Amino acid sequence: MDQHVELMSSFAEKRTIKLVISYDGFGFCGWQRQNNGQTIQGEIEAVLHHLTGEHTVVNGAGRTDAGVHADGMVAHFSTHSRLSPAVFQRGLNALLPASIRIYQAEEVPLSFHARFSAIGKKYRYSIYTGAVVPPMLRFYVWHVPRVLDLDSIDTCLAIVTGTHDFSSFENSGTRDKSVPSVRGAVRTIYQATLDLDQDGILALQFFGNGFLRNMVRNLVGTLVEVGLGKIPNSDFVAILQAKDRTKGGPTAPAHGLCLQEVLY
Amino acid sequence: MDQHVELMSSFAEKRTIKLVISYDGFGFCGWQRQNNGQTIQGEIEAVLHHLTGEHTVVNGAGRTDAGVHADGMVAHFSTHSRLSPAVFQRGLNALLPASIRIYQAEEVPLSFHARFSAIGKKYRYSIYTGAVVPPMLRFYVWHVPRVLDLDSIDTCLAIVTGTHDFSSFENSGTRDKSVPSVRGAVRTIYQATLDLDQDGILALQFFGNGFLRNMVRNLVGTLVEVGLGKIPNSDFVAILQAKDRTKGGPTAPAHGLCLQEVLY
Repeated sequence: MDQHVELMSSFAEKRTIKLVISYDGFGFCGWQRQNNGQTIQGEIEAVLHHLTGEHTVVNGAGRTDAGVHADGMVAHFSTHSRLSPAVFQRGLNALLPASIRIYQAEEVPLSFHARFSAIGKKYRYSIYTGAVVPPMLRFYVWHVPRVLDLDSIDTCLAIVTGTHDFSSFENSGTRDKSVPSVRGAVRTIYQATLDLDQDGILALQFFGNGFLRNMVRNLVGTLVEVGLGKIPNSDFVAILQAKDRTKGGPTAPAHGLCLQEVLY
Repeated sequence: MDQHVELMSSFAEKRTIKLVISYDGFGFCGWQRQNNGQTIQGEIEAVLHHLTGEHTVVNGAGRTDAGVHADGMVAHFSTHSRLSPAVFQRGLNALLPASIRIYQAEEVPLSFHARFSAIGKKYRYSIYTGAVVPPMLRFYVWHVPRVLDLDSIDTCLAIVTGTHDFSSFENSGTRDKSVPSVRGAVRTIYQATLDLDQDGILALQFFGNGFLRNMVRNLVGTLVEVGLGKIPNSDFVAILQAKDRTKGGPTAPAHGLCLQEVLY
């Protein structure tokens, strides 16, 4: 009987499983599998191999850089295993380090693709403006211990909202050429907001249909220069329109960034 | 001139400096200096030696165990150095690991003692009741993935509020005998509250005039047993009145506990 089940199992139909993943990016070399260094994709693939015996590729909705966090990364993989999504979730959470957690696992149509099916993403960038960073926040906020002109930043957030060529905020030579690229560097930001919470964390949130490599970090680095008065907010439109990365501000550090949600 | 200043300095009057300290207890062997293992007291004393050349004892308001956090520990030290409190704060924060931060430094009367002058302390214990612990919370919450009867826990919190002999929640043989102990195991809890926040964190907060060794963790371990229905809440009064540690529930893990504030 067991042999029969196993035989059946080896001919089980291919299925696609979607995962919603959270991770603490500290200590990882980013999402994407590498030969050297621990990555989130690599860790999940290793556990799936352990659970199914298959060498499975886990396709993420995007690649987060070293140190970037996620609270709602989405990925999918194909499998001939007959394990239920709930068993995949439990097995992954049992064998992965606690810095990577599977929030959800579900079977989706074979046509689902975590990257190509995505219609939007939400990112959150956290800045701590107080004098001393609380130890529990140190891996999750960029420390800018200065008074920032929030009105000026807010004005710029209104300017980036909408459909624009974001070349001024794209690191040169880094676009993922495997993505069909009729849109080039044009992206739409549906919403860009600013919120200073009671713990002193300034959160900049961006909801858009897609983001260029380092786009959020380059936007935030530039917005902080505006907030500090180093870049007049009247210059911000010109920076955006220049379509030239050299006109933008610096890249904000990775560890303030968190991929919050991928929408389908 | 410089020599004169230095000579003056070496005869500067003794002063007492009060520090308000936050730390992430993960990776530390607790507050108290040890010969083996990194401790918060040991780290601060080492930096003060570097800053002043003096071998200074940093007296904490209490001892937190390995893994316990603090967001408002208070300590004091005596010094002949003429460094201002602001310079002490900056120097300590520059040289300490980012897991220990000095929120405040101020000169206080010589009679001030972080432990003996304290009139109250506030502790917070955090429990995560959801199925999967968000990675960013993993070092700061106890994971109890169960439905807890919050009304029963709340009833018990009302019972512990007030002045009681808390022997049932004191680990045997651990009382600090150097503290004048006319009060024995009698302590007063002014306020004990429960709050389930939007992130799914159940916070139990205790404000009292003093706490026995492991008292909060033993209370929380027992309250969770009540919440799970393993101990009927009608038995809770008997446990408190037994003045016998063997009647209480287990000790909750260290990493859910945070010393929030010390009052003077």
